[in-house]
Amino acid sequence: MTLPFEKHEYLERVDKVKRSMEREGIEVLVSADPANMNYLTGYDGWSFYVPQCVITALEEPEPIWIGRGIDANGARVTTYLGDNAIYGYPDDYVQKRDCHPMDYVADVMRERGWSKKRIGVEMDAYYYTAASHEALKHGLPDATFLNGHWIVRWVRNIKSGTELQYMIQAGRLMELVMQVGTAHVSPGVRQCDAAAAIFQAQISGLGEFGGDYTGLCPMLPTGIGTSTPHLTWTDETFRVGEATILELAAARHHYHSPLARTVFLGEPPQEVADTAKGAVEALETVLDFIKPGVTCEEVVQSWQKVVAKYGIEKDSRMGYSIGCAYPPDWGEHTLSLRIGDRTELQPNMTIHVMPGIWYDTWGIEISEAIRVTDTGCECLANVPRELLVKE
Amino acid sequence: MTLPFEKHEYLERVDKVKRSMEREGIEVLVSADPANMNYLTGYDGWSFYVPQCVITALEEPEPIWIGRGIDANGARVTTYLGDNAIYGYPDDYVQKRDCHPMDYVADVMRERGWSKKRIGVEMDAYYYTAASHEALKHGLPDATFLNGHWIVRWVRNIKSGTELQYMIQAGRLMELVMQVGTAHVSPGVRQCDAAAAIFQAQISGLGEFGGDYTGLCPMLPTGIGTSTPHLTWTDETFRVGEATILELAAARHHYHSPLARTVFLGEPPQEVADTAKGAVEALETVLDFIKPGVTCEEVVQSWQKVVAKYGIEKDSRMGYSIGCAYPPDWGEHTLSLRIGDRTELQPNMTIHVMPGIWYDTWGIEISEAIRVTDTGCECLANVPRELLVKE
Repeated sequence: MTLPFEKHEYLERVDKVKRSMEREGIEVLVSADPANMNYLTGYDGWSFYVPQCVITALEEPEPIWIGRGIDANGARVTTYLGDNAIYGYPDDYVQKRDCHPMDYVADVMRERGWSKKRIGVEMDAYYYTAASHEALKHGLPDATFLNGHWIVRWVRNIKSGTELQYMIQAGRLMELVMQVGTAHVSPGVRQCDAAAAIFQAQISGLGEFGGDYTGLCPMLPTGIGTSTPHLTWTDETFRVGEATILELAAARHHYHSPLARTVFLGEPPQEVADTAKGAVEALETVLDFIKPGVTCEEVVQSWQKVVAKYGIEKDSRMGYSIGCAYPPDWGEHTLSLRIGDRTELQPNMTIHVMPGIWYDTWGIEISEAIRVTDTGCECLANVPRELLVKE
Repeated sequence: MTLPFEKHEYLERVDKVKRSMEREGIEVLVSADPANMNYLTGYDGWSFYVPQCVITALEEPEPIWIGRGIDANGARVTTYLGDNAIYGYPDDYVQKRDCHPMDYVADVMRERGWSKKRIGVEMDAYYYTAASHEALKHGLPDATFLNGHWIVRWVRNIKSGTELQYMIQAGRLMELVMQVGTAHVSPGVRQCDAAAAIFQAQISGLGEFGGDYTGLCPMLPTGIGTSTPHLTWTDETFRVGEATILELAAARHHYHSPLARTVFLGEPPQEVADTAKGAVEALETVLDFIKPGVTCEEVVQSWQKVVAKYGIEKDSRMGYSIGCAYPPDWGEHTLSLRIGDRTELQPNMTIHVMPGIWYDTWGIEISEAIRVTDTGCECLANVPRELLVKE
């Protein structure tokens, strides 16, 4: 199988991760986050429902992969790693009371001479459970454990040319996906049929290239459901007089371009129309404001100045970095657009600017996924930026 | 919103969980697994990418829900819980270096008077990360922590009439999904287009009811990829002379009916045809063998006797319990069909009998999802049980 990146790009990533490990005093880094595993080795399979990891050691030129035995061939097919860097644990470790896959990982790490090292683990990574950590510590009693949660994800934060190419392709898919999604939000159409059409468009994609599964599934809260962002579909139909929020993404080689839009069936109440107008104006102000050197906090302040005029209130963060991701999220968990985050934006950071507004009984989401350029920013997808009113 | 179960059914579940907590010496149980949260309260949203939990206390009649502030309205819409049982943490806790949502959970637990209790946590639950556990322990230094990982999932193991009804509906969806999947595995068709059609069928479902997203995404390894179970699709086309494994599921109210079949384009090699024949014969022997009172281990032995004749080798487990599930898995993580598991089968247990066979360069999967009846077992879906050869 052809990998989506050249081997030298993977090794450059490994090298950057090692420089960061050195700064943090970490000699061996255990990455259990599927996106980090993919980023370092290319590994790609829906096997993250069992413990698995990629381990980067300062003293080794390439990382190693450890996962379930039946997935080891998946590592052979999807990574650049040699056979001696791929370890499959016996199936007896899977979902048992008396042992844990991380016991096996500890055994491999001991064999490799890492039992007394300063070991970084991704403490808050999806799938690095409390039990995983206990088993690893138990198996390596002489090691020193440090939190390496942010190491790989901050290296991922600035995108390469090839990564950006995939994200721009994902943006093209996103245009199709949103078009299909909004077309299906119509009175009498079942929510599940709209969701099905969205999935179909996400995965089938375009003639030149198809799409991947996305970090979150399509979300389409409707009616009272728009008061909260993460509801999915039911068998009910869309109704006149109600709003539907479409928070969707498209992905190419797991690189995401998300987007949110809101559709109103019939004449929207004045309050909804006014809020949408303020939301769009504020979002456009933010897009004009973003450029290298400004901080996340300053981006939020530029937004707040506009929405204050409209009486719009919002406590939650209004964006986050995006890129390579696996379920359950498409966020990168590095910078957030919120007060207190003083990260300076740099060229080729990619961000979902998502100033969703949720009140007690309704809400509105209108967002853009952007790339920071040398002088400003540009959107990954080109979709009309408005409350879509369908009669 | 109408909940998929009557309130009394949820409360019966809570009661069973409490009886199990008592046996394990647990006074307060923190459930972070989304399927467990759904099972106890009805909570349903794709919000498990941030820490959240349902807490069951022996001394309280109903559980409480704690999650991100913006998801609290989702709990209001999808659960039977009253407002005073729903806690939303401020967005400032999300993905920060200096605090963790479980700090907030610990605060709530202290307020509720649980700071010195014997607290059960689901140590190996998806989304209960090492950092979640550290934060909770740090916030409740006087509590005693116990591993309550298996409590809710073992209560879930035996299905009620309504649960079975949803699983049988999922089986009907599964028949459609497999039909659509196998129809799209044809020479020249892109893998992504087959996957897209499968998603469409899963979600759009039937006229009477649609489907849900499934615990794993559709898996369709093809060619060399069939040597490992968890590869997904690419933009490449299916080729004559190659096998494709379809391991798929359909879900109704998150209750799953999975199924695997293998398609061969063109004339299969003798080795593949013979292995498929043995796999089907062995699977049918197992289906005849399963009844209340036999153990998981005995099921495996009944399978082994048949495949031995065909020279088929397999080290990995050949099945697991299924039911309500959220990504990344549709397995329930209780019983496994493997040597050493002496769990006795009981009526209304539901199992994916999945004796996948993976060799170095190819593999075959032919499975059935079944319900144990009073006298034997019955399949949730009715799909021809064979290697499907397409000319």
